[in-house]
Amino acid sequence: MTRNTHESRTQMPLHSIDVARLTGRIRELGEIGRDPQGQLTRLAGSDNDKAGRDRFVGWLETAGLEVAIDPIGNIFGIWRDEGNADAAPVMLGSHIDTVINAGIYDGCYGVLAALEVIETLKGRGVVPDRPVVVAAFTNEEGVRYAPDMLGSLVYVGGLPIEAALATIGTDGSVLGEELERIGYAGDAEPGLLRPHAYVELHIEQGPVLEREGFAIGAVENLQGISWQRVTIDGVANHAGTTPMAMRNDAGLAAARIGLFLREHIALSNAPSVATVGTMRFEPDAINVIPSRATFTVDLRDPDEDRLQVLEAALADFLVRVAAEEGVEISVERLARFQPVGFDQCIVEAIEASAKAHGLKSRRMTSGAGHDAQMIARIAPTAMIFVPSRDGISHNPREHTEPADLVAGANVLLDVVERIACRGWKGN
Amino acid sequence: MTRNTHESRTQMPLHSIDVARLTGRIRELGEIGRDPQGQLTRLAGSDNDKAGRDRFVGWLETAGLEVAIDPIGNIFGIWRDEGNADAAPVMLGSHIDTVINAGIYDGCYGVLAALEVIETLKGRGVVPDRPVVVAAFTNEEGVRYAPDMLGSLVYVGGLPIEAALATIGTDGSVLGEELERIGYAGDAEPGLLRPHAYVELHIEQGPVLEREGFAIGAVENLQGISWQRVTIDGVANHAGTTPMAMRNDAGLAAARIGLFLREHIALSNAPSVATVGTMRFEPDAINVIPSRATFTVDLRDPDEDRLQVLEAALADFLVRVAAEEGVEISVERLARFQPVGFDQCIVEAIEASAKAHGLKSRRMTSGAGHDAQMIARIAPTAMIFVPSRDGISHNPREHTEPADLVAGANVLLDVVERIACRGWKGN
Repeated sequence: MTRNTHESRTQMPLHSIDVARLTGRIRELGEIGRDPQGQLTRLAGSDNDKAGRDRFVGWLETAGLEVAIDPIGNIFGIWRDEGNADAAPVMLGSHIDTVINAGIYDGCYGVLAALEVIETLKGRGVVPDRPVVVAAFTNEEGVRYAPDMLGSLVYVGGLPIEAALATIGTDGSVLGEELERIGYAGDAEPGLLRPHAYVELHIEQGPVLEREGFAIGAVENLQGISWQRVTIDGVANHAGTTPMAMRNDAGLAAARIGLFLREHIALSNAPSVATVGTMRFEPDAINVIPSRATFTVDLRDPDEDRLQVLEAALADFLVRVAAEEGVEISVERLARFQPVGFDQCIVEAIEASAKAHGLKSRRMTSGAGHDAQMIARIAPTAMIFVPSRDGISHNPREHTEPADLVAGANVLLDVVERIACRGWKGN
Repeated sequence: MTRNTHESRTQMPLHSIDVARLTGRIRELGEIGRDPQGQLTRLAGSDNDKAGRDRFVGWLETAGLEVAIDPIGNIFGIWRDEGNADAAPVMLGSHIDTVINAGIYDGCYGVLAALEVIETLKGRGVVPDRPVVVAAFTNEEGVRYAPDMLGSLVYVGGLPIEAALATIGTDGSVLGEELERIGYAGDAEPGLLRPHAYVELHIEQGPVLEREGFAIGAVENLQGISWQRVTIDGVANHAGTTPMAMRNDAGLAAARIGLFLREHIALSNAPSVATVGTMRFEPDAINVIPSRATFTVDLRDPDEDRLQVLEAALADFLVRVAAEEGVEISVERLARFQPVGFDQCIVEAIEASAKAHGLKSRRMTSGAGHDAQMIARIAPTAMIFVPSRDGISHNPREHTEPADLVAGANVLLDVVERIACRGWKGN
């Protein structure tokens, strides 16, 4: 690594989290939920999720924190005393569920660094003005249950708890039943703590910080997200006897959608991204023309107007494809989140903390969805990003250098001290 | 139906099969293997296949035929007596396995009409010069086990029985174990009967006869078939944070293949057909760029040279896509059959029989693969086609008018009399 992301130190000695404890826990949690082939998967509500949660709760208890679990399975480790219990807490956190065949940092880093910050402050005898809470939100990834960020969405009142618990998973399971089964349908009041501020530390999951040589991203906003499921109905027919011109091939119609979106975005010169991540053919036989193709479209853009224009372009194209291919197309909206602006005071605190630690930072937009976008509805919120090697995440090759992990956690520590310990008012 | 496919009768009275018995059995067999939603599926070696086989064998026994089952599960109903047992038999047949969510005619019509022909001849006291055999070959469709036409391929010695029995299905099952399980791993000698001639009656599964107003297709050849499985490996990455230009999206690369083949065939003005019938993404998550896409390509053309050119064009395009998309592409050959020419004497007998029955016939190429193409390796072979409404097959809407079913069966009856009862020598 030739980049220089750490400026020369000019400040007084600063406190640091316990490097070995943090990286050790990240690795330890990253071993929970590996299959015999070595693939890491902890889908929300699964046995593997339970195993990861149990380990995390054990660490909370070891740290002497009060543990609270709400009905959607969000886990909170609360550090408070008689002197500050009435003040709104500073909440830190992220999630510990994963995608299929995941890396070890996405979500877990932010949760474990938050715990590390609390333990470091406790260990130093710091007495903050307000409680400090580490949160692990349920089903952030949305792989098994839609929408993603479901736990934090419920927490801020964006989805009734009953509806959330009734969510049917891709495997036919019911989220509420799975949470009961694994022992994480808690009885804490939903939305029990209204944060004074929420700060989420996370790997960037993109290439910008590494490529541009920054150690810290001060995340000031988050792009909008549109998830749709598209179903195309054509006509199943024999693959050998039906001339090409006489087909109504749902698979070929589906193939055009993802390619259109890529071309459309390239021509529009916008920062939009579009992904067709799932695909299913029916009857899915070698010698039968597909009668049905079902797939998802994930559209994102930092600008709400541009995201709407992209959605409209897709809708227009679907009408055109339906006519040209002689197929029927239906669309189901799975999730829709507008772009989110974060709290400028916290963003400035992040920049100041990075500077105090001699770390180069830049402001940036989050390309991924995060629990922070939900908590931003009820509290001043911002995020801290650290570099992802090659921009890779949702993949076993996901990696962040230990020095970057420590840098991010120390910035979080410093930000918490600024917000929770120095009479910081924020906005 | 305004078309006039039946010419005015000018011949002496001709014999006919029993219309009610034939159509009743087609409907009865078509009810075996329906799920609660009404979908008909009898995949080779399945419980539903067993149920269909049991019914068919029951009909063979009721008809007084000798039943033989070989190790790959091919079923034979043999009509012979002491006087003709030494002569090579006339074999008729097809298959009774189906695709997923199938119609009731594909395969079953030819098998049940063959049985009907034998019962009609027996009932009239006809004593043929040679045995007449009805055959139902295993796994013609190839949906559960590749390649298709596996039973007849084994029968003619084109695939060792051990290899065929070890075939792994799409569901991980082993064909040999499934045949044992359902009681159809027989002990008759493989290839026990070397036919004097083989005639397969089948629905066209294409639109030509209906569109052009013919009742009978005298099928003189069969197009070549190439099946390949293509695997594209890209890079899984986060759908929100990876700019479009920095992706290695296996799904988009896969999307280009089917569209390329359609465009290539349109430009080449050839009768080739290409189908991407199966598709699987990994990890198949909404917010993850597909790291892998696996799909099948079914290519067909009546001309071997043209089929090879099409295969080469696909191979060239895969190299181009790999380079342009930054993905790795590997190809596995699942099946390859050259175009097959049928026996001109039998084709002429079919034409003569159609004419004798006052039916308009035309010579044609089979677009689909059939067991006949395998048996043609060891015996003079041809096929009889009847119209498929709207050209639809491999679909619940598959339909042939009762008058056409009867016409086809009566032509088969007449052809058998010509070949088996009149000292016909053929080629």
